[in-house]
Amino acid sequence: MEDQVKIKLEKFRELVRKIRGYYEAVGLMHWDLRTGAPRKGAEFRSETIGMLSTEGFKLIISDEMGDYLEYFTKSDIAEQLDDLDLKIVKECKKEYDLNKLIPAEKFQEYSVLTAHAQTLWEDAKETSDFAGFEPYLSKIVAMKQEFINFWGVKGTRYDTLIDMYEPDMTVEKLDEIFSKLRSRLVPLVEAIRASTNQPDNTFLKQLFEIDQQEKFGLFILEQMGYDFEAGRQDESVHPFATSLNVGDVRITTHYLQDDVTSAVFSSLHEGGHALYEQNVDVKLVGTPLAQGTSMGIHESQSRLWENMIGRSRPFWERYFEDLQQHFGPQLKDVSIEEFYRAINRVENSLIRIEADELTYNLHIIIRYEIEKMLFNEGLSVKDLPEVWNAKYNEYLGITPPNDGLGILQDVHWSGGDFGYFASYSLGNMYAAQFLHTIRKELPQYDEWIAEGNLLPIKEWLADKIYKYGKSLTPAEIIVNVTGEELNPDYLADYLEEKYKEIYKL
Amino acid sequence: MEDQVKIKLEKFRELVRKIRGYYEAVGLMHWDLRTGAPRKGAEFRSETIGMLSTEGFKLIISDEMGDYLEYFTKSDIAEQLDDLDLKIVKECKKEYDLNKLIPAEKFQEYSVLTAHAQTLWEDAKETSDFAGFEPYLSKIVAMKQEFINFWGVKGTRYDTLIDMYEPDMTVEKLDEIFSKLRSRLVPLVEAIRASTNQPDNTFLKQLFEIDQQEKFGLFILEQMGYDFEAGRQDESVHPFATSLNVGDVRITTHYLQDDVTSAVFSSLHEGGHALYEQNVDVKLVGTPLAQGTSMGIHESQSRLWENMIGRSRPFWERYFEDLQQHFGPQLKDVSIEEFYRAINRVENSLIRIEADELTYNLHIIIRYEIEKMLFNEGLSVKDLPEVWNAKYNEYLGITPPNDGLGILQDVHWSGGDFGYFASYSLGNMYAAQFLHTIRKELPQYDEWIAEGNLLPIKEWLADKIYKYGKSLTPAEIIVNVTGEELNPDYLADYLEEKYKEIYKL
Repeated sequence: MEDQVKIKLEKFRELVRKIRGYYEAVGLMHWDLRTGAPRKGAEFRSETIGMLSTEGFKLIISDEMGDYLEYFTKSDIAEQLDDLDLKIVKECKKEYDLNKLIPAEKFQEYSVLTAHAQTLWEDAKETSDFAGFEPYLSKIVAMKQEFINFWGVKGTRYDTLIDMYEPDMTVEKLDEIFSKLRSRLVPLVEAIRASTNQPDNTFLKQLFEIDQQEKFGLFILEQMGYDFEAGRQDESVHPFATSLNVGDVRITTHYLQDDVTSAVFSSLHEGGHALYEQNVDVKLVGTPLAQGTSMGIHESQSRLWENMIGRSRPFWERYFEDLQQHFGPQLKDVSIEEFYRAINRVENSLIRIEADELTYNLHIIIRYEIEKMLFNEGLSVKDLPEVWNAKYNEYLGITPPNDGLGILQDVHWSGGDFGYFASYSLGNMYAAQFLHTIRKELPQYDEWIAEGNLLPIKEWLADKIYKYGKSLTPAEIIVNVTGEELNPDYLADYLEEKYKEIYKL
Repeated sequence: MEDQVKIKLEKFRELVRKIRGYYEAVGLMHWDLRTGAPRKGAEFRSETIGMLSTEGFKLIISDEMGDYLEYFTKSDIAEQLDDLDLKIVKECKKEYDLNKLIPAEKFQEYSVLTAHAQTLWEDAKETSDFAGFEPYLSKIVAMKQEFINFWGVKGTRYDTLIDMYEPDMTVEKLDEIFSKLRSRLVPLVEAIRASTNQPDNTFLKQLFEIDQQEKFGLFILEQMGYDFEAGRQDESVHPFATSLNVGDVRITTHYLQDDVTSAVFSSLHEGGHALYEQNVDVKLVGTPLAQGTSMGIHESQSRLWENMIGRSRPFWERYFEDLQQHFGPQLKDVSIEEFYRAINRVENSLIRIEADELTYNLHIIIRYEIEKMLFNEGLSVKDLPEVWNAKYNEYLGITPPNDGLGILQDVHWSGGDFGYFASYSLGNMYAAQFLHTIRKELPQYDEWIAEGNLLPIKEWLADKIYKYGKSLTPAEIIVNVTGEELNPDYLADYLEEKYKEIYKL
């Protein structure tokens, strides 16, 4: 490499690190707002988040960045770069091209708005006050619509949003994938409903001391290989994972006193996200590649750990006795088999994050359809509760008693994350396909889980998926690891096999 | 005001707010590092702190700032500004002139170094490893010496550092003040040592459950009017207060299982700092005036609450029963009078933050003299433990058994805060002078304290001191409130009266 190129490259890498620094600061301020920052400081804090996000944003689209990108994409310069630097340039160019057209003051307004709205949403959810929250949500949607104009419409307006979380995914493809999945799952759900072998799960709904729930959750995180020297778990209204840097990947959970499993599964879920981020190759640190490659692949990890491992029989063969010991009489007379069936009871419920593995996809389809209506079909934000409630009634046969348990249940929209929800079902599909490969390559998989020997599984995932961060695309990952493209049949096969056995169909 | 001036002023205020935003982010990252951030992220975090501090620093000395300051100090423009804006311009100009000469990369290096050193210091203190910490401390001192050259030497090199925490204070004045104070306190300390009426304080050193200590500390903070909607209390190795914004002023404490009073007095101390920052006038927010006016005045508030209120007889007439109730048998048979005497026992001890009100000043004088030697007399960092131990032996008749209990006990130096320690004794002196005025203006003062009616005292302080933030100088505050300049006799009078009574001299 010529000396001049080397010097330019160092400066470019420094600029890129600086952008990550802003992300880290903003990430910490968001985490703080949602885990215990004092109320009265929240509005000032939102201003500061807006200011710093904007400074980072300005760098992403700065003339300095533009000059570097032009320089490093010249063929005689590019051929001197190694593979990693080429990928960093490519990723920066993608961000640059995408955002160059958004005026910085628009971006700042949006950052302040969403930071503030996430705090307001917590209150709105608690008091079921959609009317109070609606003006903020309307403003967020309106700004997102404006942004779509800047970003450029791909296929449909909603495609533009989906592509941000899952590159190259479209409404057309999703409609097809969801339809294929639905065609196999709907008969299964119906057979389950008709089954006379309904698991009893009433014993899960007793009073469970939160201290003990916390202890057990921390124990499980340790077992799965979450590194507490490179992270911590706190409480928040809505559980989340946030990667501040590779040595600081935090998760949160939410305890329900009358539900022993909610917090455990949320620890497994967020822990899955965190394992991904904690195990990204250190050489990617300080670059835009030091993160999961897409939200779909990210969710595949959270859902693999939450459901495919966490709701499996071998897992509880190992850990149920531990769970029992954390409480007094509550689970004393429950057998492992009863517990396993209970946590896999299929039920039409109101809350997405507490839904079973099977109907979960219906919760996603509702959100996917509503977002499509919002961005492609002119649905007004004011009408959201009505549409939401109608769809819950149609798909799940239940109507939320209030908006806190309905339209206000998810944090995503308050942060402007439209187009994200599909990732959860994509995650399920990726996960099932990965699981199929794991079972082939690690024949002792079930045995290991039953022994609580989870670390080799984490290592396999780290080696095949986590370490690459964003240096491979989702399509490259799924093909490299499993040998074929995304195929929803793996999820359908997995669910059929599991639930036919549980419900004795 | 001309329109053009108005527009310029708005832009200037925006730049000023942006600088505060960087401070807020950096403040949160420091707080986080010291209250529970995962270890493995600390090094990356230090880089980010360095980067953001530098960005804020660059704005302080930016050409943009320089242009504004030149513009607003022109007489025809300045005369259009109101008093508040004139003061903001003055404060910004002071920061600009002071820092303009420091190269940004030096500043960044220093920020990264001190952020990192504060984390290393925690380990070094715990393991008494001065040798491991010494290279970092040496580097910090060397950089501080370089900075003094940039800032300009005032009187002596050490004067330059003192002036940063207490404007217009000098080695010459401090030598005189300390000598005057010493001449009155030394005979008092000697008389106390010779007294046959030594209070028994052995009952303070039992096992006290930390949960209960925490509960009691939070109760006391509430009583003194600390606003938990605009702050929170956490644990850290060394207690501190940090003002992120006027609605988010956090404090920390440190619990010792075998000492019931350490955490209580540290809550009162940091709570005093926090009351100051929480009650700054909202119109100063987003300006460099939204903070305490000097470290001396700041410490006057922490030490007023900790000692003059918190170690007074009326305070415990109200709160001792509460304290007793937080524990089992530990304090059951102790009377209020015994407790009052115990917490005011004068003792030659190793740890500054646990020292009694009287000998505390000796701890300060040791540090003041050592810092003077470091910066004015060529003392090497390597020799610090030896000098420290010799001085403790000379002034207090005791030698630290290890460096963790000696030279490594304070956080200040790891953060580069040389010149700060004198503020604590200045704070004692200011506080005693304020107290003298309070007693005149609020004749029911003692009665109110005995009733736990602390809020009117907080209100008086807020009205006379807190609300002004940095919009008045320390000299203006002390004269406005008490009618005269700083006079160390008030502290000597207060201490003599208090301790002669306790020791029956």
